[in-house]
Amino acid sequence: MKGLKDILPPDGFSDAPETLVCYGFDASGTGSKPSAVVWPEGTDDVARISKFASDNRIAIVPRGAGTGMTGGAVPLNGAIIISFERMNRILEVDEKNLTALVEPGVINGQLQREIEPMGLFYPPDPASMHFCTIGGNVAENAGGPRAVKYGVTRDYVLGIEAVLPDGRVINTGVRTMKGVVGYDLTGLIVGSEGTLCTMTRIRLKLAPLPQAVTTILAVFDDLRKCGSAVSDITSSLIVPRVLELMDRETIKAVESYKPTGLPADAEALLLIELDGQERAIAEDAEKVSNLCKALGAAVNVAVSEEQRQRLWEARRSLSPALFHISPGKVSEDIVVPRSRIPDLLVRLRSLSKKRGIDIVSFGHAGDGNIHVNIMADRNDPDQKEIIKKVVKEVFEICLEMGGTISGEHGVGTTKAGHMGLEVKGPALDMMKGIKEVFDPMNIMNPGKIFVNRDRH
Amino acid sequence: MKGLKDILPPDGFSDAPETLVCYGFDASGTGSKPSAVVWPEGTDDVARISKFASDNRIAIVPRGAGTGMTGGAVPLNGAIIISFERMNRILEVDEKNLTALVEPGVINGQLQREIEPMGLFYPPDPASMHFCTIGGNVAENAGGPRAVKYGVTRDYVLGIEAVLPDGRVINTGVRTMKGVVGYDLTGLIVGSEGTLCTMTRIRLKLAPLPQAVTTILAVFDDLRKCGSAVSDITSSLIVPRVLELMDRETIKAVESYKPTGLPADAEALLLIELDGQERAIAEDAEKVSNLCKALGAAVNVAVSEEQRQRLWEARRSLSPALFHISPGKVSEDIVVPRSRIPDLLVRLRSLSKKRGIDIVSFGHAGDGNIHVNIMADRNDPDQKEIIKKVVKEVFEICLEMGGTISGEHGVGTTKAGHMGLEVKGPALDMMKGIKEVFDPMNIMNPGKIFVNRDRH
Repeated sequence: MKGLKDILPPDGFSDAPETLVCYGFDASGTGSKPSAVVWPEGTDDVARISKFASDNRIAIVPRGAGTGMTGGAVPLNGAIIISFERMNRILEVDEKNLTALVEPGVINGQLQREIEPMGLFYPPDPASMHFCTIGGNVAENAGGPRAVKYGVTRDYVLGIEAVLPDGRVINTGVRTMKGVVGYDLTGLIVGSEGTLCTMTRIRLKLAPLPQAVTTILAVFDDLRKCGSAVSDITSSLIVPRVLELMDRETIKAVESYKPTGLPADAEALLLIELDGQERAIAEDAEKVSNLCKALGAAVNVAVSEEQRQRLWEARRSLSPALFHISPGKVSEDIVVPRSRIPDLLVRLRSLSKKRGIDIVSFGHAGDGNIHVNIMADRNDPDQKEIIKKVVKEVFEICLEMGGTISGEHGVGTTKAGHMGLEVKGPALDMMKGIKEVFDPMNIMNPGKIFVNRDRH
Repeated sequence: MKGLKDILPPDGFSDAPETLVCYGFDASGTGSKPSAVVWPEGTDDVARISKFASDNRIAIVPRGAGTGMTGGAVPLNGAIIISFERMNRILEVDEKNLTALVEPGVINGQLQREIEPMGLFYPPDPASMHFCTIGGNVAENAGGPRAVKYGVTRDYVLGIEAVLPDGRVINTGVRTMKGVVGYDLTGLIVGSEGTLCTMTRIRLKLAPLPQAVTTILAVFDDLRKCGSAVSDITSSLIVPRVLELMDRETIKAVESYKPTGLPADAEALLLIELDGQERAIAEDAEKVSNLCKALGAAVNVAVSEEQRQRLWEARRSLSPALFHISPGKVSEDIVVPRSRIPDLLVRLRSLSKKRGIDIVSFGHAGDGNIHVNIMADRNDPDQKEIIKKVVKEVFEICLEMGGTISGEHGVGTTKAGHMGLEVKGPALDMMKGIKEVFDPMNIMNPGKIFVNRDRH
C-alpha cells in the first residue's frame, strides 16, 4: 500500500487491524479482510485511488453501508475498500424539475426525510432504508415494498458520474426526463454491483409525494386463499403501493419474538397500502377490503399515521425476529409471476416437509418477489449440505414457474455459482464481454456476479 | 447473395429493383438502396440470415415500418434489410400478470386495440403508433405524449429474445416484475437502434387501463405565460398523462392546412390530459384549469370521447400540416429540464429571427421534449448550409440548458456527427467497446449512432 496514503486527504487511509475487521463483512454474513480502507472526499480522490489500484493491479471494492445480502461489499483476496462515509452530501434538489443530485454515501432515509417537506418523494424503500446508502442501492438495483407500484432503483436513476478502474471519469445519462443518445450506460451501471466502475455522483428522479396513504391488514386462515387475494387484487387493476405477504411460520416467528396480537391460527396475512388522492384511495380501499373479505379474511383498515404504524409493526419486526430464532439462517430472494404465488407457497411447504427444515416465506407478493428463509444454521457442517440442496431446489421451483433467482438482492458471491441456472451461455458471454470493456484488468470488485471470466 | 434465398421460406427473399427502392428509405427522408430484402417467419430464419451475413461479412439492418426520424432503418452500402412484416404475432397476453409476448413486427396500435377490451393498457404512444412496430419502438426507445406520466418504451420491456450477428440466440431479462441477475442486457438492447443484435421476441409489461380520461385545451396569448403554466403544473405535483405544447407558428401552420377554429391571435396552447379515477381527475382538472386561467388562458375541458377527439384534432394534423408547408423541413427532438422551456422557446424565436428561417416548435412539454422544426428545404444546397448551422445552434442552446439532443428519435445517421457534443470521450469509448462485444465484425446496422468505431 506504499504511496496510497500520500495521495489521500488526512485520515483518508487506514490499515489498522480493527478497521480491517469492521470493513470485511456485510449483511450476507460472509466476510474476508481488506488490505486497507480508504475514505475519499470527492471525485478526484476516487480517480487517484483507481489510478493507484490500476497501476499496482490491486482490486478495489466500493462500499456503502454493508447492508447487502449477497456479499457485494465483501473484499476478496485483500482488496482495498473504498468507503463513501465522507461523500454523503445531497448536492442539489431541483424542486421545479423533480430531480436530486447526490453523492453515493447519502443514506436513503435521510434523502426521504429531507425532500418530503418539499412535497417530494423518493419511492425506493429497501428494508434497510434507514442505514443503507443510495450508492449501494444503485449498485444492487435495490427494491423494497413500494416497488409494486413505483418500480425499483433503476427507474429513478437519470445519470451517473463514475470513475473507471483506470481513473478516467465518465458521465452517463441526462438531467432531463428523457434521452436516447447512444447506449443506456446509466441503466447498465445500475445493478452492476460495483464490478464496472466506482460511482461518485448520482442524479435521481423524484416523484410528487402522494396526498394520502391508507393501510389495510388482512388475516387469512388459508394460505391458498391469501395467494388468491394477491392475484385478485392485481387483476382488479388496482395498483396498491405495498402488497406484502407473511405466511404462518413468519407470523409465529414474529409473535414469539414480540407479540403484536395477531391471531394464533392465522395461516397468512397481507399488508396492503394504497396511496394517492384521498377520495380515490377510500374507494379503492373498500374494493380491496371486500375482495379480501370474500376470501374469508379478517380485515383492518388504518388511515391515521398512528394506526398505520401499528399495522406495520409485525412486518417491521420480522427480520430481527427471524435472525433471533435462527442466526445462521439463509435468506433467498426469488420472484415468480404474481399469479404463481399460491403454487409457490404450497411447493415451498412440501419442500420444507420433505427436507425436515423450516422454511419461512414473506415478502413483496405484489410483484411476485418472495423472501424465502431457510431456518437452519449455515455454520453447521451437516446442515450446510442440506441448505445447499434446499437452495438449489428453491431456485429450480422458481425458474420452472418462469421466475428469477434474485429480485432485489443481487448475485454477489452467494449466488454467483447459480447464475448459469438462469442466464444461458451467449447472454453470459455478452455480460463478461461488457465487464472486460470497463475493467480489462479485473480489479473492480472481482469475484462478484461471475464465478470466472472465461467466455465460450 | 448466392445461397441466401435457399435458406429462407418461400417468397422470403427479394432483390427486385422496385422492392429495393421501397425498403431503402425511412421517415428521416434519407435513403440508400439495400442489396436484398428478406422476410423471416421466425427466430430460426433470423438465426440463419445472421449466420449467412456473418459468414459472408455482409451488413444486416433490422427494419420495422420505417417510421424512424433519424435514418435507423436505412441500409448503408448495400446492406440486407431484415423486414419483420411476417413476424407480427401477439404470441401471448397474460392478463393475470399483466405481460404480453410479441414478435417485433406487431404494430403498436394493434396491440393497444387488442388489449384494451381486457382492461389492459400499453402506454407508449409515438405519433406513428398506427403504423410503427413494437420492434422499431424498442430499437429506438420510442416515447410519445403519454411518456410524461407513463415513461418510455424501455420502462415496458421485461425481456428480449434476440439473435447475435453470428447467429447465436440470446434471452435477456425476466417474465416477472423484478430481476437483478447480472447486467441489464434488456435495457441495453432497448434504444441500441439495431446495432447490437436482431430482436425476435419481446416481452412487454402492461398496465391497468385507466378508468377515465379528461382532456383540457388551454390557449395563451403569451408564449412565456404558456411556458410558466407547464412549469406550474409540474411543480403542483399533479402528473398529467399528456402535456403537449404548440407555439404560434405551429398553430398558424395547422390552421392554414385544416382549420380547427383556434383563435388567430393565439401565441401558444397546451393540450393537457389527466387519467385515473373519475372523481380524482375531476378534482385535478379543476386545479389545472384554474392554474392556466390565472395565467390568462382560455380553457376548454372535454370529458366525452367525442369532445376529447375534437381537442386532439389540431395536435393530430400537425405533422402532415408541417410537411405540407415545408416538405424539406428538418425536425429535431431536443429535451431540456422542464423549467427551462420558456427560456428555450424564447431563444429559439431569436435564433429564427437571426438566421431568417422559420422555426416551429411543439411537443411533449411535460417532459421537456420539444420537437424543433426548421422550416427550410434540406434539398436546396444554399439552405442546407444554413440548416446545418441552425441545427448545431439548437443543440448548443439545449446542452447549455442541461438538456439532451435526442429525447425519443435516436441518433441513427442524422445525429451521429453530433454525438460528441453530448457524450464525452470515455463514455463514448465504453459504448464502442460494447458494440464490439456484440458485433465484432460490425455487420449490425453499421454507420448508425457512431461515425466511426475508433476508441481513444
